[in-house]
Amino acid sequence: MIIVMKPHASEKSIQAVAKYIEENGLQVHLSQGEEVTIIGLVGDKSKLSTETLTIFKDVDRIVPITESYKLANRKFHSEPTTVKVGSTSIGPGNLTIMAGPCAVETNDQLMCIAKAVKTAGATILRGGAYKPRTSPYSFQGLEEEGLKYMQEAGIATGLATICEVVSSDAIEAAVKYVDMIQIGARNMQNFILLKEAGQSGLPVLLKRGLCATIDEWLNAAEYIIAEGNPNVVLCERGIRTFETATRNTLDLSAVPVLRQKTHLPIIVDPSHSTGSYKYVPPMAKAAVACDADGLMIEVHNDPAHALSDGPQSLNFQKFADLTDELAPFCSLIGRTFKS
Amino acid sequence: MIIVMKPHASEKSIQAVAKYIEENGLQVHLSQGEEVTIIGLVGDKSKLSTETLTIFKDVDRIVPITESYKLANRKFHSEPTTVKVGSTSIGPGNLTIMAGPCAVETNDQLMCIAKAVKTAGATILRGGAYKPRTSPYSFQGLEEEGLKYMQEAGIATGLATICEVVSSDAIEAAVKYVDMIQIGARNMQNFILLKEAGQSGLPVLLKRGLCATIDEWLNAAEYIIAEGNPNVVLCERGIRTFETATRNTLDLSAVPVLRQKTHLPIIVDPSHSTGSYKYVPPMAKAAVACDADGLMIEVHNDPAHALSDGPQSLNFQKFADLTDELAPFCSLIGRTFKS
Amino acid sequence: MIIVMKPHASEKSIQAVAKYIEENGLQVHLSQGEEVTIIGLVGDKSKLSTETLTIFKDVDRIVPITESYKLANRKFHSEPTTVKVGSTSIGPGNLTIMAGPCAVETNDQLMCIAKAVKTAGATILRGGAYKPRTSPYSFQGLEEEGLKYMQEAGIATGLATICEVVSSDAIEAAVKYVDMIQIGARNMQNFILLKEAGQSGLPVLLKRGLCATIDEWLNAAEYIIAEGNPNVVLCERGIRTFETATRNTLDLSAVPVLRQKTHLPIIVDPSHSTGSYKYVPPMAKAAVACDADGLMIEVHNDPAHALSDGPQSLNFQKFADLTDELAPFCSLIGRTFKS
Amino acid sequence: MIIVMKPHASEKSIQAVAKYIEENGLQVHLSQGEEVTIIGLVGDKSKLSTETLTIFKDVDRIVPITESYKLANRKFHSEPTTVKVGSTSIGPGNLTIMAGPCAVETNDQLMCIAKAVKTAGATILRGGAYKPRTSPYSFQGLEEEGLKYMQEAGIATGLATICEVVSSDAIEAAVKYVDMIQIGARNMQNFILLKEAGQSGLPVLLKRGLCATIDEWLNAAEYIIAEGNPNVVLCERGIRTFETATRNTLDLSAVPVLRQKTHLPIIVDPSHSTGSYKYVPPMAKAAVACDADGLMIEVHNDPAHALSDGPQSLNFQKFADLTDELAPFCSLIGRTFKS
Repeated sequence: MIIVMKPHASEKSIQAVAKYIEENGLQVHLSQGEEVTIIGLVGDKSKLSTETLTIFKDVDRIVPITESYKLANRKFHSEPTTVKVGSTSIGPGNLTIMAGPCAVETNDQLMCIAKAVKTAGATILRGGAYKPRTSPYSFQGLEEEGLKYMQEAGIATGLATICEVVSSDAIEAAVKYVDMIQIGARNMQNFILLKEAGQSGLPVLLKRGLCATIDEWLNAAEYIIAEGNPNVVLCERGIRTFETATRNTLDLSAVPVLRQKTHLPIIVDPSHSTGSYKYVPPMAKAAVACDADGLMIEVHNDPAHALSDGPQSLNFQKFADLTDELAPFCSLIGRTFKS
Repeated sequence: MIIVMKPHASEKSIQAVAKYIEENGLQVHLSQGEEVTIIGLVGDKSKLSTETLTIFKDVDRIVPITESYKLANRKFHSEPTTVKVGSTSIGPGNLTIMAGPCAVETNDQLMCIAKAVKTAGATILRGGAYKPRTSPYSFQGLEEEGLKYMQEAGIATGLATICEVVSSDAIEAAVKYVDMIQIGARNMQNFILLKEAGQSGLPVLLKRGLCATIDEWLNAAEYIIAEGNPNVVLCERGIRTFETATRNTLDLSAVPVLRQKTHLPIIVDPSHSTGSYKYVPPMAKAAVACDADGLMIEVHNDPAHALSDGPQSLNFQKFADLTDELAPFCSLIGRTFKS
Repeated sequence: MIIVMKPHASEKSIQAVAKYIEENGLQVHLSQGEEVTIIGLVGDKSKLSTETLTIFKDVDRIVPITESYKLANRKFHSEPTTVKVGSTSIGPGNLTIMAGPCAVETNDQLMCIAKAVKTAGATILRGGAYKPRTSPYSFQGLEEEGLKYMQEAGIATGLATICEVVSSDAIEAAVKYVDMIQIGARNMQNFILLKEAGQSGLPVLLKRGLCATIDEWLNAAEYIIAEGNPNVVLCERGIRTFETATRNTLDLSAVPVLRQKTHLPIIVDPSHSTGSYKYVPPMAKAAVACDADGLMIEVHNDPAHALSDGPQSLNFQKFADLTDELAPFCSLIGRTFKS
Repeated sequence: MIIVMKPHASEKSIQAVAKYIEENGLQVHLSQGEEVTIIGLVGDKSKLSTETLTIFKDVDRIVPITESYKLANRKFHSEPTTVKVGSTSIGPGNLTIMAGPCAVETNDQLMCIAKAVKTAGATILRGGAYKPRTSPYSFQGLEEEGLKYMQEAGIATGLATICEVVSSDAIEAAVKYVDMIQIGARNMQNFILLKEAGQSGLPVLLKRGLCATIDEWLNAAEYIIAEGNPNVVLCERGIRTFETATRNTLDLSAVPVLRQKTHLPIIVDPSHSTGSYKYVPPMAKAAVACDADGLMIEVHNDPAHALSDGPQSLNFQKFADLTDELAPFCSLIGRTFKS
């Protein structure tokens, strides 16, 4: 951390800052430029509330130098992480497709979708049993009943399973039935839930918040890992911008940026980010091309009658066509898929 | 809701949409323009998943006409709501100031701050006992112990008290000790927490999410009210934009917009939104001038040594000066304050 | 256009709106729902300033139904457009790469870069002679001298050439020396410049403004085409969001959205959008994978000594490696490149 | 400027950076922390393209320490600037109201509006003769004819006059007829126009770009001042965010931020930012309360028949009521208005 003083900061102001730092057990490193004086801190910054330094006289601003996340940081863990989920795994060398309905509706529906996505190449079945909806009057999910259907569909097809959780009750139930849990965008900074997810022992898919910076996202991952659970997978699902032609703006450049900053695997969700099935195939290909480790795609047997998010769901034929088209992209980028 | 068909939509496409609507128990209202055909829906739209209509052939887009929130909507509840909190109330005719430290640190500290803010005109003591922090390594709050200090400070000074809650455990504890609970920005769409807040029986201050639209915010309020708890107060605390000179961008025009859309009282937080004590007084005055019902302001006995958010906290003198300056603005705008 | 009235709008209010519309030569189409009345307009809306309708009593809001751009609109021109630039062309079936330095520096430098990018597969040479820079103290370009170098490099290599223009003087000069002009992001709504570009007779590359919606962008294209110049190519170059890990956020989903909305070709610029050479290759591949018609990439002989935008420039080796890697992606997507 | 090296940067990498800096005539200031090495630059940074330093091996990032604008910077010019416009002036101690129609329509209309706004307390008449419009099919203004009407209305009422300019032709014309020129939001980074405005000799109102940061805005002001024209006034008119309930989001906290960063006067435009006349009075009061030096407000004799932006215009009565309400706010804040 660096403290930039204002031009013409008095010697007295500079000494006051230095004294405060030293009183907190850190060392000071002064650098007197022509225009400004800069004060560096050396030592364990967790000992002082560094932001309060901005209150001191003649302090212009504080510039953080190191990231606050450590366990998720590639600087301290250079090898990419592979996360095991049931009988499959997410990470370098293969492309993982998670597919299924936005919301679990009935046992038959889910079984039928599971078989279709398995045939087309998916290895993880997704399905929402707890639905966080903007309006209290929208369909909120089948809850534990839905989780049971997920388990049955997983056993019948050999697919691993993933469900979103929205509370500690949901996590408790999920542990009994599914292979991976998902923290949704709206809960990315629900820190209680992150800690509980960390304690669950299950691998966690952490979706990016709608207006979360990449650094905040990695700090949220840090909450999970800090509970002793290293099995975190990140999922880019679009950020909120001024553009309204798509539901959100898919930030694909987050993929290579994350590769620099973290060792965790990265999944892209082209369904929720764009909000329209028409945009799913091109964005899925783009995600593979920029080296995402996998995709999360909504698939529905009958999108016109889906209880949630029908417009962005692919039907079976469109999904099968897409995975056929994706396969040669995977070869080009050096990832195993459907083979 | 209106369905706009593409130019040259075929009669068959139009009939398919109309049939789907009628099968779901609604009536269709066709409007054939020169360029486009528009299909209106008449009846109870909750019966169909209207968004799936976008999948139908030749549908260009869906235009919602009515808001999904009803109980929070001024169209169906034209009188402004006054919310009672302990011995004070928030609503038309008076200006409510909630003040106190970002985080409760010790009993003595809180008592000393409580007395100072009471003297300066605050009627509600704020103080965080559960702190949602971006990094897992930052101070996370005193939890229930902090709530007890809040209660003691409230009793000693006659101030009503408010604390943020982040989990159902925190709500259970808060019910025992404080007069009002707060849902923070990061939990604005933690729907489980919203429902539990609704069931708590306590008045709820609902902060706007960092990237929540006003409509999403009112839908979040609807979650609370739909549980039978009409005592919801909204708090604008800045939204996330590209500008980095302030921590967030305080959206003061949300105040008059909310006046049109809802009957709920509106509080403005100039501390968290700007992130700097220097900007708190001008933005506090601006909030009063555009007719906010109150302010939430961070005050600390010793900002340079605060455990959280020191840079945006006012010390006692600055807070007392500010309330002195605010008083004549309240008179101008027709609100009682310190009298 | 549709006018949505407030619930319980009086008959008198409805009649006032209807009368205003009819006085302006349009027809009214009333639709009385259970909750709200909707008024449709039939006829030539250019006859009235429709937005003023929001002032009428009991009007809730105005909903536009048709886009204001016509010539750029795919609804009225379903075939994709191919734009000829010198001896090459941009459009369906092939991938066009525009490459070169951010700023033209010297004749030798440009010639050397031109040869390298030609060898690697580029067909258009880019190079800035007029540089719009945030600070007045940054290097502003060689102006007409730089255009001459562009022409010479184009003749020597057989590459077509493109330069940004920032004024009518620059357009006048550009017409003499280069094959295509570029309107930069900061001038996307410099309507005078758009008109002059339309009158220039040269094909125009129109970059998206940093905070322009897709509809505003297409309206800007409309300005150019309305002057009788149909040769407009769109260039996505990142939009401004809250994320700071990349210079801007590359909105790749704009590519498939534009395919639906317009017949104009679409180029993606992974250099300016990300701001770092490290992110150029993955985003270039992603752009090809989601079916962009081409790429604009910054290439420099010695990025460490570039006068502008060095950090995002590829050196010759990295650029050649990238085009080698891109070729099989083009085959997959059905575009000719380097063959 | 500071260069932050990656953890474990090699001595060789550090020396390479240091050598590059010294070769460019600057001095290096090394600071070796426990985790990272930081390299400070001392000397005239304009000598090197500092951003290219990010290409060097083991460089993590570059942190700018000083702002690139100097003439607009309060650090080097601590006294607030007062700008004279015709017979009035903008700056500390008084509140300036610029009022008038969005677009000049006819001589009679303008004269009638001028008299009304003068009576109500405005001292500068605004009116658009050159209108930058999103669609080429919208009304584009009366051009020079409109400027003449402005001059006549100014002479008749004693009001100073201001008009937006969009090209060098418009500036040339404006110099003959009006007292102040305006650079609109869409042209804030039209650097050619900024330079020409600087050379015009007229005071310049510089509106903030829709997605311009405060630092970019001040750099744009620097372009004008660097041409020898110190008479620049800044105008906050809303930024683009995800919120759609208002046309843009009025960033009122920009007012106190600008007070810290610059000595230039600050005007707030509540009409364009909100897009609705209903929100103009509360936001005008808020702007005065947070110490803006003035307001720009749209006023129209007959908003329902305005050729542009009717919905946000106040009629005469509403404008007179507003200035009456504003007067006591001015007294409170220590500014002269209507006296």
